[in-house]
Amino acid sequence: MEPIEQLFIYGVLVSSIAGLVYALLLIFQINRYDEGTEDMRKVNRAIREGADAYLRSQFKSIIIPLAFLSIFLFYTGTSQDISIALGRVWAFLMGSLFSGSVGYIGMTMAVKGNVRVANAARKSFNEALKIAYRSGTITGMLTDGLGLLGGVIILLAYGPERAYEVLLGYGFGGSLIALFMRVGGGIYTKSADVGADIVGKVEEGIPEDDPRNPAVIADLVGDNVGDCAGMAADIFESYEVSIVAAMILGLAAFPGSVKGVVYPLVVRAIGIFSSIISTYFVSVSGDVGDAMGAIKRGYNLAAVISISGFSILAMYYMGDFRIAVVTFWGIILAVLINYITDYYTSQKFGPVKEIISSTQTGAATTILSGLAVGYESTVIAILAIAGTIIASSILFIQEGFLMIAYGIALAGIGFLTLTGNNVSMDTFGPIVDNAQGLAEMVGLEKDARKTLEHMDSVGNTTKAITKGIAIGSAVLAAISLYNDYFQLTKLTTLPLIESHVFVLFFIGLLIGGAIPFLFSAIAIRAVSRGAFGMIREVRRQFRENPDILKGKAKPDYGRCVAISTLSAQKELLTLGAVAILAPIVVGFSLHEFALAGFLAGMIVSGQLLAVFMANAGGAWDNAKKAIEDGLFGGKGSDAHKAGVVGDTVGDPLKDTAGPALNPMLKVINLITLLVAPVILLYKQNIMVNMAVAIPAFIIMIVALWYSKRPPKMEE
Amino acid sequence: MEPIEQLFIYGVLVSSIAGLVYALLLIFQINRYDEGTEDMRKVNRAIREGADAYLRSQFKSIIIPLAFLSIFLFYTGTSQDISIALGRVWAFLMGSLFSGSVGYIGMTMAVKGNVRVANAARKSFNEALKIAYRSGTITGMLTDGLGLLGGVIILLAYGPERAYEVLLGYGFGGSLIALFMRVGGGIYTKSADVGADIVGKVEEGIPEDDPRNPAVIADLVGDNVGDCAGMAADIFESYEVSIVAAMILGLAAFPGSVKGVVYPLVVRAIGIFSSIISTYFVSVSGDVGDAMGAIKRGYNLAAVISISGFSILAMYYMGDFRIAVVTFWGIILAVLINYITDYYTSQKFGPVKEIISSTQTGAATTILSGLAVGYESTVIAILAIAGTIIASSILFIQEGFLMIAYGIALAGIGFLTLTGNNVSMDTFGPIVDNAQGLAEMVGLEKDARKTLEHMDSVGNTTKAITKGIAIGSAVLAAISLYNDYFQLTKLTTLPLIESHVFVLFFIGLLIGGAIPFLFSAIAIRAVSRGAFGMIREVRRQFRENPDILKGKAKPDYGRCVAISTLSAQKELLTLGAVAILAPIVVGFSLHEFALAGFLAGMIVSGQLLAVFMANAGGAWDNAKKAIEDGLFGGKGSDAHKAGVVGDTVGDPLKDTAGPALNPMLKVINLITLLVAPVILLYKQNIMVNMAVAIPAFIIMIVALWYSKRPPKMEE
Repeated sequence: MEPIEQLFIYGVLVSSIAGLVYALLLIFQINRYDEGTEDMRKVNRAIREGADAYLRSQFKSIIIPLAFLSIFLFYTGTSQDISIALGRVWAFLMGSLFSGSVGYIGMTMAVKGNVRVANAARKSFNEALKIAYRSGTITGMLTDGLGLLGGVIILLAYGPERAYEVLLGYGFGGSLIALFMRVGGGIYTKSADVGADIVGKVEEGIPEDDPRNPAVIADLVGDNVGDCAGMAADIFESYEVSIVAAMILGLAAFPGSVKGVVYPLVVRAIGIFSSIISTYFVSVSGDVGDAMGAIKRGYNLAAVISISGFSILAMYYMGDFRIAVVTFWGIILAVLINYITDYYTSQKFGPVKEIISSTQTGAATTILSGLAVGYESTVIAILAIAGTIIASSILFIQEGFLMIAYGIALAGIGFLTLTGNNVSMDTFGPIVDNAQGLAEMVGLEKDARKTLEHMDSVGNTTKAITKGIAIGSAVLAAISLYNDYFQLTKLTTLPLIESHVFVLFFIGLLIGGAIPFLFSAIAIRAVSRGAFGMIREVRRQFRENPDILKGKAKPDYGRCVAISTLSAQKELLTLGAVAILAPIVVGFSLHEFALAGFLAGMIVSGQLLAVFMANAGGAWDNAKKAIEDGLFGGKGSDAHKAGVVGDTVGDPLKDTAGPALNPMLKVINLITLLVAPVILLYKQNIMVNMAVAIPAFIIMIVALWYSKRPPKMEE
Repeated sequence: MEPIEQLFIYGVLVSSIAGLVYALLLIFQINRYDEGTEDMRKVNRAIREGADAYLRSQFKSIIIPLAFLSIFLFYTGTSQDISIALGRVWAFLMGSLFSGSVGYIGMTMAVKGNVRVANAARKSFNEALKIAYRSGTITGMLTDGLGLLGGVIILLAYGPERAYEVLLGYGFGGSLIALFMRVGGGIYTKSADVGADIVGKVEEGIPEDDPRNPAVIADLVGDNVGDCAGMAADIFESYEVSIVAAMILGLAAFPGSVKGVVYPLVVRAIGIFSSIISTYFVSVSGDVGDAMGAIKRGYNLAAVISISGFSILAMYYMGDFRIAVVTFWGIILAVLINYITDYYTSQKFGPVKEIISSTQTGAATTILSGLAVGYESTVIAILAIAGTIIASSILFIQEGFLMIAYGIALAGIGFLTLTGNNVSMDTFGPIVDNAQGLAEMVGLEKDARKTLEHMDSVGNTTKAITKGIAIGSAVLAAISLYNDYFQLTKLTTLPLIESHVFVLFFIGLLIGGAIPFLFSAIAIRAVSRGAFGMIREVRRQFRENPDILKGKAKPDYGRCVAISTLSAQKELLTLGAVAILAPIVVGFSLHEFALAGFLAGMIVSGQLLAVFMANAGGAWDNAKKAIEDGLFGGKGSDAHKAGVVGDTVGDPLKDTAGPALNPMLKVINLITLLVAPVILLYKQNIMVNMAVAIPAFIIMIVALWYSKRPPKMEE
């Protein structure tokens, strides 16, 4: 390594620490703000306890699988070097720990932030905005700082030649925890939400966030564990995996040099500084203002700093401006995806208008138009991604696959350059959502509630945008990992008509394509089951103590929280088992080409389903909101009822099943990369193959059978 | 060609003619039955006129595209031999004509049959069953006879060496018309159905098939044009394309011999004889009986005859029993798919029960559980198909790709061996459905209505089964065509990490995966628009002439028929344009490997979506029926309302968007095979590429833009 490169790498290390220090400073800052009235503190305490209880129980249930997987990782390493095998295990644990920490600390700070936002809203718009945004920025900076820190540490500890197996462990740890947090959080939040709505709003006719509803605290907790902890872990993982993928490809594309590794790391470091600077300046002048405008200004500032930074780096260090161009394509794709998401989910444009108008003829046409909108949006999103890949590839077409793959990986790096800002924006959403719910529950002043309502609607937009970004980043990272697959397995060609391997590839493609559908079916069912449990409990409380509905007795919030926690935890098992075992079964029974097809099929149908679910769900949500704002008779009209059906269908799609596909794509990709060398090694040994594939298959079937339990309804 | 082979081929020719003669005999037989009362004749005449009008207008609107495509086919042939180029054109026209004829004659006989079934039901169960089944058998035998006839004629006219380009034209003609008939019929029937239900059942509270509803005739016509004409053309096309694919692969797998071509043709011929024998014996003893049992007995008889026949053939002529085994795997797959379809869509099993129980908590949970059921079913279906491919491949694993591909093609042949019986069963469905509707409209005797109700429920099952078969056969045929692609383009390997082509393959995969989603979005929208038009018209008639609802004045059925006809015809254009142009755009801009990926992506996501739509739709339908039969409060209860929403959402999925994917898969595959040589020829010529790709792209965008028109609603 040349001195300049050592300097760069230590610079990256410093900047990742700078990001963490900035997060720490913000934590101190937020803690200093006042928590408001006793009532507010009480509700907030209940939310905090619920959220803590959930995460504790979730972490507890993850420990045993983690231990198993650590042993598995130790023994599946093909390197003879024991330090690599051990390194893979600790990197795996570090990835898990980082991913979990981002989720846990980010969520804790969001919960702490929301009561302070609600309190600040009573005095100043600007202060409320600042607290909300900065609470979110804590998560953003943790994502950036920890994501980068892990990569650099591994690079420094193992050196560029030996880092890759260790990096895979790191990526896998982060992805796995993200999968659990995303799925668990998603099931939690939607079980609570759907359960609270069906008994509260539909059956008893009490408003949303009414303190009489026993599930109201569980619902507020759900926003935090789903939208904060889940989303934070999800994006952390994309951030981390895309750097892992870029580093592996960078090592391969520049043999004998670390340039290819240094560049993406430094781009990330630049991203951290631009996020620190730009997020600190997010505020409005005067007392009431345009929150979205302030957030966007911060975003644009960060973009300008980043682009300037990596352009200079590409030109003077890499000596190849194309490197900057592909990084830039990633940013362009992020902008495009924002537009596409906005077009398909905002009330201003045709698609949501189409859904709104179809609410007039009832729930069925509402659902159908949402399906059409969602399906159509997948096509546009996939064309944007395909276009980015083409635009990146074309620059390196003479250099062959490795440089092309590296270029695509850099587009992924560019795509996530502004992660700090993105996560800040995103976490802003549930924070103000919770602040508003809290204001509603304790009956805060009208002005404060108005301020919070404005911020909540901004938060809905920022959440929707991040959802698109999360999917896009997942797909790009998955494609880069897929390219790693060929690099690692040394599969140079896929014979087409000479042998049977293309048939294997195609079979893998078919099976891989089905996996996201299987995953979605399980996730949707899990929410149904959780919601049914919640409905039963809320009904029971109303029935056994009629004073609750009269407002004379306090409902038992704790039991509802416990029910959500339990169902989230139980339902995780199947999804985790499928993600980990499916590639193992395919790999050991049908081998490396089938596995290549499997990954490709999964990425294609995963991307399609994830985009469909996110956009259809978002569109239904906003169509309902438009009616609630007064269109076609407003609340209580037939059109509104149809809109509510659309929204309720969309909720588990956009907040549970769809988002779960992001970490799933990467968990499956990474487990494939981890086991591929073992599969190649034992390819001819039918006993080993059967000894692995058959038990894995049986465990998977048992897990699936378990997930098929019908939801229990009361008589 | 050896004498035995000539004998075989002429034998095949004779048996295809025998199938047609049998169809003709059945036509005479059906015509002899009595049409019943004057009222019945009147209604039947209205249906016949509506159906004729629709098909005439559809055929008219297809003529110009056909003419264009004929010219296109003439000039894209790469063979220097003008007789081949001309042959391709006439084969294309022959395929179109055959496919259209099967649809047209089949539908006409179904319409003629249904009034006779209704009349016969007044006297004898057995006679009604026989007429219904035999009217359906006409379509079945036409499918068999014409499908086989075309293949043999081409083989005889061009000889085995030169047949393949001509065969492609033949396959393309059949597929294209099937696409138009399937999509047009699907849009027609669902526009009428949804429109009639929403104003009639929901808004005005009059029963289904009530003569006061102006859309009732359009609805009855829709059953014929969608379920008879559309389905018949669809299966005809699978039947025809799978023989084309098998012949092409058979020629390649057995160089210098025609064995590989003769075997599938003779298997088909055996299938015809077994269908003739077995369908003739479908009847029940005594006066009332078990219609399903009789149909199943016929099916089993046909299976026994066929399996014995091709086993002997494989053993003594091919000298390789594995050939019989793979054909047999196709039959096993058909049986498996029947079970899967039954499991996911019948009230007897878990999935539909799950939906039924979720109707208790409203429309949203009904939709969600249907989505979960549909998604899950795709996984099982894909595993069955993948399993069949594995089981077929494993037998020829030493012989390499061509024999494996031939084996898979033979599984497709086996899968459709019993097409005659399948189509008979399927067409039975809409015939008895219409007979029952007719009985309802004219108020037939109670006993007759009971007989027809029993048959109608049997018809629902047979229709659902055929839907699964149609999808499975489409996927198998598409896979065989895909294998042809490599054979024809002579692509021997797909370089992975040596060059950029794998990136192109992957981009193609992404874009191809999106095509079925695009198609579905357009098809769903088309139904919505058609239904809105119908709703407007029915409302107008009720408003302008209040006597209609009182039963004092006759509604204007004709205008409703005209509206359905017009919307079906208009909406076809976009779907046809996308199917034909998308592969051309991809092929000329990104070339042969991208096109290979494109086909693979399309097959994977097309299969998943088609199965999802068919099974979710079927499951919702039967969940609603279970409630109507008295569960959870029966008709009018809240659970029933939720069930109706599910059914209405499922209808366009299972009857329009889903089935349209079958011919789409093959049209796109065939157009790819047709243009692939041209793409390879001009690969280096960027001017030609742009001159083709850009206009094609623009036309496609215009067509898509046209399909985005929002549905027009009245103020």
